[in-house]
Amino acid sequence: MKKIGVFGTGDVGRTIATKLVALGYEVKMGSRTATNEIALKWANENGGKASAGTFADAAAFGEIIFNCTKGEITLSVFELAGLKFFKGKIIADLSNPLDFSKGFPPTLTGQYINTTSLGEEIQKLLPDAYVVKTLNMVTCAVMVNLKLSPGDATMLICGNHAKAKQEVTEILHQFGWKDVLDLGEIVGARGMEMYLALWVRLFLATNNVNVTFRINR
Amino acid sequence: MKKIGVFGTGDVGRTIATKLVALGYEVKMGSRTATNEIALKWANENGGKASAGTFADAAAFGEIIFNCTKGEITLSVFELAGLKFFKGKIIADLSNPLDFSKGFPPTLTGQYINTTSLGEEIQKLLPDAYVVKTLNMVTCAVMVNLKLSPGDATMLICGNHAKAKQEVTEILHQFGWKDVLDLGEIVGARGMEMYLALWVRLFLATNNVNVTFRINR
Repeated sequence: MKKIGVFGTGDVGRTIATKLVALGYEVKMGSRTATNEIALKWANENGGKASAGTFADAAAFGEIIFNCTKGEITLSVFELAGLKFFKGKIIADLSNPLDFSKGFPPTLTGQYINTTSLGEEIQKLLPDAYVVKTLNMVTCAVMVNLKLSPGDATMLICGNHAKAKQEVTEILHQFGWKDVLDLGEIVGARGMEMYLALWVRLFLATNNVNVTFRINR
Repeated sequence: MKKIGVFGTGDVGRTIATKLVALGYEVKMGSRTATNEIALKWANENGGKASAGTFADAAAFGEIIFNCTKGEITLSVFELAGLKFFKGKIIADLSNPLDFSKGFPPTLTGQYINTTSLGEEIQKLLPDAYVVKTLNMVTCAVMVNLKLSPGDATMLICGNHAKAKQEVTEILHQFGWKDVLDLGEIVGARGMEMYLALWVRLFLATNNVNVTFRINR
C-alpha cells in the first residue's frame, strides 16, 4: 500500500488520517512544526502506522498527499513544505476557498473562483504533481462514513491525470463511495468548489451537516 | 387559475409558456416588441389561452411572472417593462448570470456571484415584488418533463416570501417535481446560480444535458 502524507491537523486532516490508518495505510500527518501537539497526540493514539512531522516531512514521506488545509493557507503550505517534494506525486486536494471574514455562512474567496480554483492553482504551482480534486463537497465525517447521509450519494473527482484519478478513486471506494463521477480535467474544480456556496445553504435549510447529493444522469 | 406572464421567447420561455398553457393557465409571452414573430407564432400555435405582447403587456397581464430571459439582460428587461407593474406580483426567476464571451462552457458573470446573485438583484430592483428563484438548475426540457432525467430529482427554491414560494411550489408540482426543497431567503440564489459552474461540467462529463440531482438529507 502506498505511503500517505496528510497536510493539516484540523477536523478534516484528523478524520482522513485516522481512516487511512484504519484501512492499513502508513500515514504521516504534516503541520508547521514537528512538535505540533495535536499531530503528536493523533500519532500516539493511532499506532505504529501513524506518525507526525513537518509539512516537508509529510511531503517527503507520502506517495499520495491529502491536502486538508484551509483554503486560505493551502498554497502557502505547499510552498512552505518545499516544491521539490511533489514531483510525480498524487495530491488529493480537499480544500475550499472559503472566506469567513464576515462570519458564517462564508462567501468564497473571489480570487480563486469562477475563472480559476484552488485545485487549478495548486496544479499550476506544482506542474510535476498530479492534483486530484475530490471530497471537498461534504463534511469530513461523511467523507469516510457515508452511512451518516441517507440515500445513494455521488462523489465527484477531477484532475488532469487518469492514473492519479484511478488511484484516488480506489481510496474513495475504500472510504465507502460507490458512485464516483469523473468530471474531467482539473478545471472541474471550479464547479466543485463553487458548490460550497450552495452547500452552506443546504446545510442551513436542512439543519443536516451530513447533506450529500446524487447526480442523476 | 392565476394569469401568468412569461418574459423571454427563447427555448426556456417557450417551454415554460407552452407547459403552462397545457396546464390550463392563461399565458402572455412578453418580448421587446408587440410584433415579435417568435412570440406571435407561439401564441398562434397554443390556442386561446396563449397571447403575446411587450414586456409591459406581459407584466400588466400576469399575476405571476416567469423570468426566462438571459441573465445578461434580465435586469434591463424589468426596467424596460416598467417597474410600476410588479408591485405585489410573484416573479419566478429562472435566469442565470452566464458569460459566454469566451465561448462554451461559460463562466459566470463576476458582478452577480458570490456576494450577490441575479435573484437578489431583481428583488432589490423590485422591492414590492416577491422574487422566487427556481428551475435555473436544469435544462429547460427537464423543467417541465422530469421523466427525461433518471432517478428521483430535487428542485430547489428560495425567496423572502413564504406564500409566493408556496404558489410557485404548486406550479413546480404541476410540472412534475415531487421533491422541492426550500433553501430559505433569496440569498440562497447565490448557491443556486453558482451551481451552474458545476452543471456545465456535469453536462460535459456525462454527455447528458438532462442531468439532475437529488439532495440526500
